[in-house]
Amino acid sequence: VTITRTELKKIRSLRNKKGRLERGLFAAEGVRLLEESLRHQFLPVVIYYTPALLSERGMALVDKFRFKRIPATVISSRQMQLVADARTSQGILGVFPIPSVDLAQLYRRQFRRVLLCESLSDPGNLGTLARSALAFGFELVLLAGTSAEVYSPKVVRASAGAIFGLKVARIRLPELLEFARMEGFKLVAATGNGQTDGMELKSIVDLHKLIVAIGSEAKGLSSGIVENCDLLWRIDHTKAVESLNAAVAGSIIMKQVFDRW
Amino acid sequence: VTITRTELKKIRSLRNKKGRLERGLFAAEGVRLLEESLRHQFLPVVIYYTPALLSERGMALVDKFRFKRIPATVISSRQMQLVADARTSQGILGVFPIPSVDLAQLYRRQFRRVLLCESLSDPGNLGTLARSALAFGFELVLLAGTSAEVYSPKVVRASAGAIFGLKVARIRLPELLEFARMEGFKLVAATGNGQTDGMELKSIVDLHKLIVAIGSEAKGLSSGIVENCDLLWRIDHTKAVESLNAAVAGSIIMKQVFDRW
Repeated sequence: VTITRTELKKIRSLRNKKGRLERGLFAAEGVRLLEESLRHQFLPVVIYYTPALLSERGMALVDKFRFKRIPATVISSRQMQLVADARTSQGILGVFPIPSVDLAQLYRRQFRRVLLCESLSDPGNLGTLARSALAFGFELVLLAGTSAEVYSPKVVRASAGAIFGLKVARIRLPELLEFARMEGFKLVAATGNGQTDGMELKSIVDLHKLIVAIGSEAKGLSSGIVENCDLLWRIDHTKAVESLNAAVAGSIIMKQVFDRW
Repeated sequence: VTITRTELKKIRSLRNKKGRLERGLFAAEGVRLLEESLRHQFLPVVIYYTPALLSERGMALVDKFRFKRIPATVISSRQMQLVADARTSQGILGVFPIPSVDLAQLYRRQFRRVLLCESLSDPGNLGTLARSALAFGFELVLLAGTSAEVYSPKVVRASAGAIFGLKVARIRLPELLEFARMEGFKLVAATGNGQTDGMELKSIVDLHKLIVAIGSEAKGLSSGIVENCDLLWRIDHTKAVESLNAAVAGSIIMKQVFDRW
């Protein structure tokens, strides 16, 4: 099977938001990322690979996808360079369906730990938070406001494949509050001016289902969320800095929740 | 005073490693970053500003620099766009001397908390680690191996100005081991396959001066460091991910050290 120019253009278009939205697909590149997709059974609709660029580990991965009956198409180095987002391609790229998560599906799903990202604009931070979420037992990531798009190449890469293991959904504030109320979640905000009360914290974390909310780097969380929070969680630090990086702050809270689980 | 083309070229050259090394200078841009330089009394040799682009807060900052007798030169929007690294300039840029830290200066300085970054190639991670280091009471950042350059625009930006508040030095492995031995530091490695022993950890953190070592995203710490560590510190997480982001891992350990301080 040889690949047509039109097909190459279609893959290439997945580097842009417009292309992804039009086709309902996204791309992930590199051996490690695609290994994670396999591990989480989040399978591509097709993979493209370039034997000349691919490591032994990469070739073994192609075989595993083949075994799963995923169509695998050989393309040339030049073609791979054309469609790949990475500067130096590892010779493998998978095309995946963007999961469409209906909010109704979030109900009665036994989620206990949810991460809410509000208007996080930095793709690196969003990807890193997804990675930490999966690392610390969070099962669902909700995106509110103008958050970066979770299936962009930068976010996928920064997540180290964690987005393959998480449910992700966009949500608006009223829906979020309804979801939290109906499902009995406590809403916890990471904020610079909250309170950390060891005992209160511990009892909330031990007893309740939690939504941990992280706000934008520049502005923090919106008042709509802060006002509806059950707990404002401040991470204690020196006064030598004004705030922590958003991904670091979120990760530290998720780690603390995980340790007290 | 009008600015010459040669001077503009000189400032612009600070965006590149070559220019920074040749001149021993680096640039930092934006109101928040320059406010941090002031807060930490790490002063620029000169600032450039563009009134048309500058907020009120930015103008107030210019006045503060003037009060400190820092030369302040007005440049046009076009000139600012030319020299700035940021896509949309906030209308202020400071030029700073790159501090040259002699290793001899690190001795007998009462450092208690040191962060060691080995071959961290991602500027965002290095900057974020510097920010967390300052937040959690670390006083010195040591760079070993092929770490990213700490005064590059990306690192400075990701540090949110924390590099103005930290001592930073490059060090080679033999010098590091000598420094740790002579000054009585315990060397702690963040690693995926270490041990976390709550009690041992607590007593080490309580009783000793610490160097916390973070390795590269791709390869972790070199064997030269791991073999000389007093403690291998594993951050407990689910098996759904292989590892944490390097900046997140380092920040979580520094936070835990800070909390037990």
